[in-house]
Amino acid sequence: MLEKTFLLSELAERVSGEVRGNGALAIDGLSTIQNADPSKLTFLANPAYQKYLHDTKAGAVILAEGMADTFSGNCIVHKNPYLAYALLSELWNPLGSIEPSISQHASIDDSAKIAEGVYIGAGARIAADVVIGAGAFIGENVTIGADVQIGENSRLYAGVSLYHGVTVGSDCTIQSGCVIGSDGFGFAPSGGGWQRISQLGGVIIGDRVEIGANTTIDRGALGDTVIQNGVILDNQIQIAHNVVIGENTAIAACSAVAGSTTIGKNCVVGGASGIAGHLEVVDGVHITAMTMVIKSLTEPGVYSSGTGVQPNKDWKKSIARLRRLDGTESRIKEIEKQIKLLQPKAED
Amino acid sequence: MLEKTFLLSELAERVSGEVRGNGALAIDGLSTIQNADPSKLTFLANPAYQKYLHDTKAGAVILAEGMADTFSGNCIVHKNPYLAYALLSELWNPLGSIEPSISQHASIDDSAKIAEGVYIGAGARIAADVVIGAGAFIGENVTIGADVQIGENSRLYAGVSLYHGVTVGSDCTIQSGCVIGSDGFGFAPSGGGWQRISQLGGVIIGDRVEIGANTTIDRGALGDTVIQNGVILDNQIQIAHNVVIGENTAIAACSAVAGSTTIGKNCVVGGASGIAGHLEVVDGVHITAMTMVIKSLTEPGVYSSGTGVQPNKDWKKSIARLRRLDGTESRIKEIEKQIKLLQPKAED
Amino acid sequence: MLEKTFLLSELAERVSGEVRGNGALAIDGLSTIQNADPSKLTFLANPAYQKYLHDTKAGAVILAEGMADTFSGNCIVHKNPYLAYALLSELWNPLGSIEPSISQHASIDDSAKIAEGVYIGAGARIAADVVIGAGAFIGENVTIGADVQIGENSRLYAGVSLYHGVTVGSDCTIQSGCVIGSDGFGFAPSGGGWQRISQLGGVIIGDRVEIGANTTIDRGALGDTVIQNGVILDNQIQIAHNVVIGENTAIAACSAVAGSTTIGKNCVVGGASGIAGHLEVVDGVHITAMTMVIKSLTEPGVYSSGTGVQPNKDWKKSIARLRRLDGTESRIKEIEKQIKLLQPKAED
Repeated sequence: MLEKTFLLSELAERVSGEVRGNGALAIDGLSTIQNADPSKLTFLANPAYQKYLHDTKAGAVILAEGMADTFSGNCIVHKNPYLAYALLSELWNPLGSIEPSISQHASIDDSAKIAEGVYIGAGARIAADVVIGAGAFIGENVTIGADVQIGENSRLYAGVSLYHGVTVGSDCTIQSGCVIGSDGFGFAPSGGGWQRISQLGGVIIGDRVEIGANTTIDRGALGDTVIQNGVILDNQIQIAHNVVIGENTAIAACSAVAGSTTIGKNCVVGGASGIAGHLEVVDGVHITAMTMVIKSLTEPGVYSSGTGVQPNKDWKKSIARLRRLDGTESRIKEIEKQIKLLQPKAED
Repeated sequence: MLEKTFLLSELAERVSGEVRGNGALAIDGLSTIQNADPSKLTFLANPAYQKYLHDTKAGAVILAEGMADTFSGNCIVHKNPYLAYALLSELWNPLGSIEPSISQHASIDDSAKIAEGVYIGAGARIAADVVIGAGAFIGENVTIGADVQIGENSRLYAGVSLYHGVTVGSDCTIQSGCVIGSDGFGFAPSGGGWQRISQLGGVIIGDRVEIGANTTIDRGALGDTVIQNGVILDNQIQIAHNVVIGENTAIAACSAVAGSTTIGKNCVVGGASGIAGHLEVVDGVHITAMTMVIKSLTEPGVYSSGTGVQPNKDWKKSIARLRRLDGTESRIKEIEKQIKLLQPKAED
Repeated sequence: MLEKTFLLSELAERVSGEVRGNGALAIDGLSTIQNADPSKLTFLANPAYQKYLHDTKAGAVILAEGMADTFSGNCIVHKNPYLAYALLSELWNPLGSIEPSISQHASIDDSAKIAEGVYIGAGARIAADVVIGAGAFIGENVTIGADVQIGENSRLYAGVSLYHGVTVGSDCTIQSGCVIGSDGFGFAPSGGGWQRISQLGGVIIGDRVEIGANTTIDRGALGDTVIQNGVILDNQIQIAHNVVIGENTAIAACSAVAGSTTIGKNCVVGGASGIAGHLEVVDGVHITAMTMVIKSLTEPGVYSSGTGVQPNKDWKKSIARLRRLDGTESRIKEIEKQIKLLQPKAED
């Protein structure tokens, strides 16, 4: 890969920050504060890393105003160093810009409408009446079903599968192995077995949505499954049919949302959480990792469940006690009764 | 996609229901009771939706006998409205019937036996001695290993991988991204490391089995992993080597069944549950979502675990108390002793 | 598939075991002790299966010294029967040896360096500057990004996706559907939404690493995600960015390790466990299934969490009691106070 080099002053300008020190310094990459070398830019956002600041070998550091005053090296002063780092990181992303091309090893239906500046990799399969917006990236071995729409500059990495009729907005990223538009888990009991319910709805994904590797999003039974603008989903998440996820909500890896549940805007769901079906979670809810959500959450706030790790021996005791709590309750009641009997009566 | 229109009377006939009102009404789709328009058929199965019945704009409603008597609009009277809806849903499924064809971009070993009326998509790879039954659907970029057998009318959607020797019955659906026949997680400790155990068994999948997106089913170590007829598995389920799942059992998304466990018939397993290895779960067990099954379940019934969501502040207290239960126990014992001492003795 | 037959004495020699009985016996496969027939070799490792020994129809049994003395049939005496079985299992693995070939339906960049004796399946996509070692197996519909390195004799089964710059050592196995090198879940809050942080690190996978189906391993944000030599990962595991997993650690299916966590050597993590981010787990830790690890584990030992399955009725009571523990605590305090009041004072 090519090395890309920028002057410190150029980088500062891109994030509207202020250079202190040598603005002409050549920077060829980003690094952590502990491992940086003199051609790298680093940043200090988490106070836990402040101890590394004065010994860092980095060529320059992105710092908040207060910190910058204590630092004698080169720096970019920025009100939000973490955001500045995020913005600059794109400069060194080898996948940052795409080289438009359409592989001769792709198969594309004649009725598909492919805009300008699109990359379509070998083994991509694009069915009838698909519409792909300008600047989109369709990776190797991706399969796109009939009537799918993909917005401008959206990226589908290798091996993604989109079923028929799925809509993806612009500026989305869908990592490898995602499946979107698969049939929801809908079956009617029928004589001891199960009658499949055809899933007739679709999936609508807004703009600037990020979807992690091997995440699955089922199509609606009737009506659509909806992922609103700016939602970010990590790897191996399961979104069932007719779920609605509100704008800018973030969900960490391995979480699952069951059918017809609605999650509000600006929520944060920790990893490996489960949210049962037909619930409502309002805007601004924060669910910590591995939480078992089995009722609607009607107020913003932080929610949790689970018992947390213990040495196995202690855990066994805790669980045994938990199961004996009913007996504990009875003993306390009996004690309270006895104490009443022992206490001097008013009439005494 | 083509619009498909049926007379209300035709639809009633298909499900052996009785029309009340205008049997000549043209119906072009199904809808939820809240969102229907006059060309749609809807249904009332869940009493929670009864409130929408009298204001629905649907052209007609599938209703149970009792409800139908209170309704003046067009309806199909059926003893099981949800099942009737399920049966009719297939009529509007754009994937309902397949157009047989074999893509020139597929690679099919000369020794493979492909029956009549099969669809094989671009990028499908079919190895030696594979047998594919009549009416089967093999989606784009599917890989099928040597000696696999696939029954009639079974469907493998885009990107499925079947390892060598897997057997799939008839009328199955396998959603995108599933992996079936991968090596089970079998290793023998060996000098501080691990010696791989070759997984020599297979996977046998019965008829009318449904498997959700990105679900994985490992091949047996010795002997087979078995999914019996009529089993329905949701997305992202993990079935380890030598598991047996009995007829018509349903497992919701993100659940995992560890090696050599046997699950009976007609069980229901809620989402994100875990079932440890070498256990037996009898017929008719219902496990609620996110349950941790670490012992055999020898009686039918409903089983659960987990602590359920709480506000984070309350959860912290609950967990702290749980860990102090040992101390609580000691205090109660001490109190009981003290009370005995305080009580008047028989000889007093 | 071909039947492969060996003399019992040949098999004994391969594992440096001692034959007792008929070394000239022809063995054509391995089997469980219960289901074996006279042409099969079986083994006895788990004492729970000892009851089957004297009635087994197996042609021969691998036994430890002590057991062999009580057995009159043919046997291989070995100090570790399970390891001997593991070593011999490879003989009957139909994927044991590969037939080198490069499919004409693969697309391979001209700059890729492919060593001798490699198998590359149909639909495999190999980008610029990839290096593939001798004897490697690249399955059907695998996608390999630019600058990837794959060591000798490593195997990537159908449908695996490796992003650019991933390094895989030698003698690794990566099962179908795995995604390695996808972007880590890194976003900076920005004006109510999220600014993506380009993930500039890589993934380094050591030698003899085993990775199960549909497992995902994200690339580092800055610096690499590292899976050390001899690690074994089961299916559907999620490894987030900048995680380090130490040598010979084993992780069972559906577990997730969040960002920047370090797990030591020789650990065992049970299935469906979750390990939060920025933690450290030392060498030799054993975490039981479905454990919620939300703090660093600084001592070797066995750790657990969760409440374990109960009949639903009992579970409801346990959980209700758990939530009332605060009240229980207050009642005990009050009782202790009352008892003090009831007790005769020293000055009485």
